[in-house]
Amino acid sequence: MDKNIPNTTENETLAHLGEFGLIARIQQRIKTNSQVLIGIGDDCSVCTIPPGEVLLTTKDLLLEDVHFRREWTDMYALGWKSAAVNLSDIAAMGGTARYLHLGLGIPSHTPLADLELFMDGLLALCDQEDVILCGGDTCRSAQGLNISVTVQGSVPQQEVCTRSGARPGDAIFVSGTLGDSALALLQLTQGEKPLDEIAVRHHRPQPRLELGRTLAQHGVAHAMIDVSDGIFSDLGHILACSKVGAEVDTRLFPLSRAAKNYLHHCPDRRAQVLRGGEDYELLFTAAVEEQQLIADISTRLGLSITPVGRIHPPEDGFRYFDHSGTLQHTSAGGFNHFGS
Amino acid sequence: MDKNIPNTTENETLAHLGEFGLIARIQQRIKTNSQVLIGIGDDCSVCTIPPGEVLLTTKDLLLEDVHFRREWTDMYALGWKSAAVNLSDIAAMGGTARYLHLGLGIPSHTPLADLELFMDGLLALCDQEDVILCGGDTCRSAQGLNISVTVQGSVPQQEVCTRSGARPGDAIFVSGTLGDSALALLQLTQGEKPLDEIAVRHHRPQPRLELGRTLAQHGVAHAMIDVSDGIFSDLGHILACSKVGAEVDTRLFPLSRAAKNYLHHCPDRRAQVLRGGEDYELLFTAAVEEQQLIADISTRLGLSITPVGRIHPPEDGFRYFDHSGTLQHTSAGGFNHFGS
Repeated sequence: MDKNIPNTTENETLAHLGEFGLIARIQQRIKTNSQVLIGIGDDCSVCTIPPGEVLLTTKDLLLEDVHFRREWTDMYALGWKSAAVNLSDIAAMGGTARYLHLGLGIPSHTPLADLELFMDGLLALCDQEDVILCGGDTCRSAQGLNISVTVQGSVPQQEVCTRSGARPGDAIFVSGTLGDSALALLQLTQGEKPLDEIAVRHHRPQPRLELGRTLAQHGVAHAMIDVSDGIFSDLGHILACSKVGAEVDTRLFPLSRAAKNYLHHCPDRRAQVLRGGEDYELLFTAAVEEQQLIADISTRLGLSITPVGRIHPPEDGFRYFDHSGTLQHTSAGGFNHFGS
Repeated sequence: MDKNIPNTTENETLAHLGEFGLIARIQQRIKTNSQVLIGIGDDCSVCTIPPGEVLLTTKDLLLEDVHFRREWTDMYALGWKSAAVNLSDIAAMGGTARYLHLGLGIPSHTPLADLELFMDGLLALCDQEDVILCGGDTCRSAQGLNISVTVQGSVPQQEVCTRSGARPGDAIFVSGTLGDSALALLQLTQGEKPLDEIAVRHHRPQPRLELGRTLAQHGVAHAMIDVSDGIFSDLGHILACSKVGAEVDTRLFPLSRAAKNYLHHCPDRRAQVLRGGEDYELLFTAAVEEQQLIADISTRLGLSITPVGRIHPPEDGFRYFDHSGTLQHTSAGGFNHFGS
């Protein structure tokens, strides 16, 4: 590749550098490892999968003015989050994340400095999780920044964690805290400035790869999913795939101090915050007898894991205790990406 | 999944059906095979890669009003082409295509019937090539249809065909014919109606998977690429990656009868048509002694393979005989996706 690539100047845009210039610039700064035989720069990337392991693949789109607004997020956070939402899916299968492919549709007027910040954020999380950027596609976008990320990982075949293994009697656990991301988004939409500790949960979610891998290695999780659409919706997926019912107690949902404080003052926002999604925590079911092992894992990883309910037989449906302790039934309706 | 999914009616749009309804509908009609352990419907797909083979991955974006215009293409062709451009990359590495993941950003008002046609075209090519749709992401798009396809394949490690193996003295070959797709696009931009045999090359390109695999199995191709940006640009990639020069004779470029006829009447369009790209033919280099084997492969597959030049030492640069037989030098400038 051409070494005479000019440095970014403040007013430089993609139209000056061109597609191949952009690819060359990205190529210069990425790491590799011995499992990537060919990275960026050929028709395909060529990578290895460890013997005995199966291939995990996930793909997410992040579209401007649908999934994010430029005025609410900085480009570093956007790059980070574009990787994070995919890595979270690998975590939910109990896998090790390995390779990332990036598709970017970019308005021609986009300053190169913005793209470099985006790559900084994306590569920071990749470095943290030993994930290699191996390829992708860049092109002009007629309207809005357009991000498509594919992440591949692997897992020993016998350790795959699906949504379909929940059994009546299982306890239901969730990692970390719920609602911080939705709270940040709610405040942003209302023109308020979220607290930093809340905003970071929305802008730079931490995929729970170590937790997912540890649970899979120990064979603890019967069913697992990451909380992206909202805990009710995502638990609904587990119930549908596992053909079981559940009872949860929303009073047990783990909340950060900031979220508790907010809901103390605005109790009518409770459902909106708790069901909002984008928590990227892991929601899983396990035999009740595993409670001590799960507590040990929680201590070892420095990440809270909270029991929030029980799996029931399918005929019980999906019911929950609300804030006042009243038992409610739900259809587990999730976020409809196409709804009005 | 819910079996009570309503049938498509003429005026039904995505906003009625919702994201999960769309996914369920797609899920109902796709095939699977024993190598797909988990397809659509979990956090990741779970697939196997044959022992001894390495993973190939390619990813392409197709954005409305950048890569395609709805008034110039029908939705079936768009689905077909979205798969084809990625499968062509697997072909260029000598691989077997296996799994496809689809990202679709869809304007809310899109008729479901359009999406079904899109899936018809995409799945028709997947079925032809034994590729399984394993997952992806669907969401609303604020503006324009937004397609992102990731295809995975595999190849025995010792048979990987890269861009970097061309050697001085190699002959340069190209499959099929060049320029038909660019001619169709040229005519569409000018409000002319291309001949069907030309239009089909633009709208429904055939990835040359069987040819790529056969060349790789026989160890024939020293370097290979698919012709997507245009033969000059794509040969330029081989030269840059292999650190060699080349001399080609444009008078040897294989043209269809329709393209020959057009260029006979409009000779000033020659460069535009021949360098236009989107041919999705395979361009490869091989030792001159393999000419007979290559001719045999061509006969067996019923696909022409034409020698168009020679690889030279790097100091010769990239030169070509133009239509009049004059030797020209080129910088092999490719299509700049961000240029004005």
